[in-house]
Amino acid sequence: MGRGQELYKRAKEIIPGGTMLLSKRPEMFLPNGWPSYYSKTKGCYVWDLDGKKYTDVSIMGIGTNTLGYSNPEVDNAVSNCIKNGNMSTLNCPEEVLLAEKLIHINPWADMVRYARSGGEANAIAVRIARAASGKDKIAICGYHGWHDWYLSVNHNSEGDNLNEHLLPGLDPNGVPKKLKNTIFPFEYNNYDQLLSIVDEHEIGTIKMEVIRNSPPKSDFLRKVRTLTTKRNIVLIFDECSSGFRETFGGIHQKYNIEPDMAMYGKTLGNGYAITAVVGKRSVMESAQKTFISSTFWTERIGPTAALKSLEIMEKEKSWERITEIGSQIQKNWKIIAKKNNIDITIKGIPALSTFSFNHENSLELKTLLTQEFLKRNYLGSTTFYSSLAHNDSIMKKYFEVFEEIMFNISKCINGDIEIDEILKHPVCHSGFKRLN
Amino acid sequence: MGRGQELYKRAKEIIPGGTMLLSKRPEMFLPNGWPSYYSKTKGCYVWDLDGKKYTDVSIMGIGTNTLGYSNPEVDNAVSNCIKNGNMSTLNCPEEVLLAEKLIHINPWADMVRYARSGGEANAIAVRIARAASGKDKIAICGYHGWHDWYLSVNHNSEGDNLNEHLLPGLDPNGVPKKLKNTIFPFEYNNYDQLLSIVDEHEIGTIKMEVIRNSPPKSDFLRKVRTLTTKRNIVLIFDECSSGFRETFGGIHQKYNIEPDMAMYGKTLGNGYAITAVVGKRSVMESAQKTFISSTFWTERIGPTAALKSLEIMEKEKSWERITEIGSQIQKNWKIIAKKNNIDITIKGIPALSTFSFNHENSLELKTLLTQEFLKRNYLGSTTFYSSLAHNDSIMKKYFEVFEEIMFNISKCINGDIEIDEILKHPVCHSGFKRLN
Repeated sequence: MGRGQELYKRAKEIIPGGTMLLSKRPEMFLPNGWPSYYSKTKGCYVWDLDGKKYTDVSIMGIGTNTLGYSNPEVDNAVSNCIKNGNMSTLNCPEEVLLAEKLIHINPWADMVRYARSGGEANAIAVRIARAASGKDKIAICGYHGWHDWYLSVNHNSEGDNLNEHLLPGLDPNGVPKKLKNTIFPFEYNNYDQLLSIVDEHEIGTIKMEVIRNSPPKSDFLRKVRTLTTKRNIVLIFDECSSGFRETFGGIHQKYNIEPDMAMYGKTLGNGYAITAVVGKRSVMESAQKTFISSTFWTERIGPTAALKSLEIMEKEKSWERITEIGSQIQKNWKIIAKKNNIDITIKGIPALSTFSFNHENSLELKTLLTQEFLKRNYLGSTTFYSSLAHNDSIMKKYFEVFEEIMFNISKCINGDIEIDEILKHPVCHSGFKRLN
Repeated sequence: MGRGQELYKRAKEIIPGGTMLLSKRPEMFLPNGWPSYYSKTKGCYVWDLDGKKYTDVSIMGIGTNTLGYSNPEVDNAVSNCIKNGNMSTLNCPEEVLLAEKLIHINPWADMVRYARSGGEANAIAVRIARAASGKDKIAICGYHGWHDWYLSVNHNSEGDNLNEHLLPGLDPNGVPKKLKNTIFPFEYNNYDQLLSIVDEHEIGTIKMEVIRNSPPKSDFLRKVRTLTTKRNIVLIFDECSSGFRETFGGIHQKYNIEPDMAMYGKTLGNGYAITAVVGKRSVMESAQKTFISSTFWTERIGPTAALKSLEIMEKEKSWERITEIGSQIQKNWKIIAKKNNIDITIKGIPALSTFSFNHENSLELKTLLTQEFLKRNYLGSTTFYSSLAHNDSIMKKYFEVFEEIMFNISKCINGDIEIDEILKHPVCHSGFKRLN
């Protein structure tokens, strides 16, 4: 057992859940085998606690590092910030410069607030939207974090049976039951459902991911925009995941639909903690009618890293490159799966590609895939978030390795090999499900 | 007008409220005159955007920097962290080491979770406590952040008249009205009030600051502990502000009363963003029954900075030194005020000292104080959060300057000078009020 697994055993004793993020739990990848902790990063390489080097062809910090890990320009900007001081009684000027930049990127927006996590940015947006609309009820579509306002949706279903969750895997224990029926989920591309929710309830806000696993159909986004304008509903696009993946800004640019507010996070600071809420003045000014304030939102590293990351993204047109890489990934996954007679479903925008095995033992196959990647010094799974560090030669080798492993997996599927004979680890856990 | 005020004018156009923290708004100090933004920090010195150097004898980053700004050892640790990579698909080992350290410091605790802001740490603690107790209702005393759960207390009062707020200055617009009567505030040292709240409502959690402006009386803390144990109520101490100011850990150590959970923040990472929830296993394990997860809580700078800050605090016994400095401050404030016939009330623990003028124009006098400090290159007001950087020679000069200014203020009070003649700025804003 490596030092990472040893440390993780200690972690599980003293940290509920073992990690700060569900998606980074070693059990999500390879129980008892995942290296779990890192000592060093560079580009798309990660070193574990034993000094072993891996190529990250999985979640790249859960989508935080589109410019690659340890980007020298971003790191230099942050190092300079540390040299000059990252905190004081006065404010950091970078927060104003970043606000100007974000408004430039989102010409429909006039004002900006920051937080240091995506969940908080979502909670800020919801607070402001509720204050602006004067209505507490919100229709949602997608994943929007761990906060009470959002998880309360799982109180809507009758009874306390956790299996009846609208959002399976997101347990609402500890969320006030009084919040029941304040949040109403709708399915992506189901305009009629959304309309009936809006007709039935006093909805003040619609909050959604612009796109998740499939593109908008039948002019869905435009219909949502028209509805919200007509009914005086605040429209919020959660771009924490999708932002800067296909455009320089929100993916809503691609569909030419403007929200009233949007949130950015994840890759905004290329791995440094910074998230932002941008919005129209008419809505954002309601932040002044409520209380939204926190000490560490004033810290200087976040906006410094974001300013430099945005500069590099713009210079490199990073969204084009990572989408190109992602398209290659989806194309090759399809070809290799077909060649090996493996039935898979590919989802996600190219830069956030993921697939699942259409098989009764899909999680076993996924675990085997990770086990085999790891043997070959890859952090790999069924998800691949692309970055600028994934250059042609790395991708070429990745596809070779993937094909080799998929060939072995095909033998398990067609019965030539018993999966239990070669799978040396317990089956990985599954995550929570989004409304698609 | 300096470059800071110019930038702040731009900020107010594009950031609702102008800053991320109410307490750092220039209007809280000196409207139209406060330097507002910094370029550099060192020790207790802050340079503004025009390169002008000030001595910070005010809030020291709102209590974040007890080791002084730009502490070289903490900054080196963070720089190393950046060199090795601050984010990856794997987790950072520092979060486990920090958890072990925090449990060592809090021997009554077994488990730890982190966030990156104090408000989030409070929200995590509340979620876990509610999941553990199975009860949504909470009795509170003190300030616990901007989140819905807390601000909802201001919906309790009848009507929508914002002047009737239980916590004046904290507007609950945008907080779901359904949360009304889930949170019940009690006054510090008023055990009978707390008891009647617990008798009347199904309280599952009591959440309080251990001490704020006055010490516990009549064995108050012990009575609260006995009550919570007997009634099976989760007792949470919010040590975000008070932690590491009088002890190496929570100020509850001083009173020998152990909670079931505690939060630390502010100075834990000496200005780097990190906050922590520590608690007993029996309570903390309920985090597993709910969903508490966020990408940037996995970032490496926070726990790295905290580990190094704790090491230095322990080595320097920083809490003793900053309390000593704070005691000098309170003593000299008293002497100087008395000498000049100025009636003031001093509050707070020594390391978080604050005073107010007992005068009908108290805010005018406060504004004048800041104006005069600023003229003499001090960031000063009626609040002084002490740090290791406030050495004897700095303090000696500070007291001289303070005495000089207070002499002038006494002339305004006794009518020798019209305050309007010398006050060149609009009167400062007042902050929100805590329940004392």
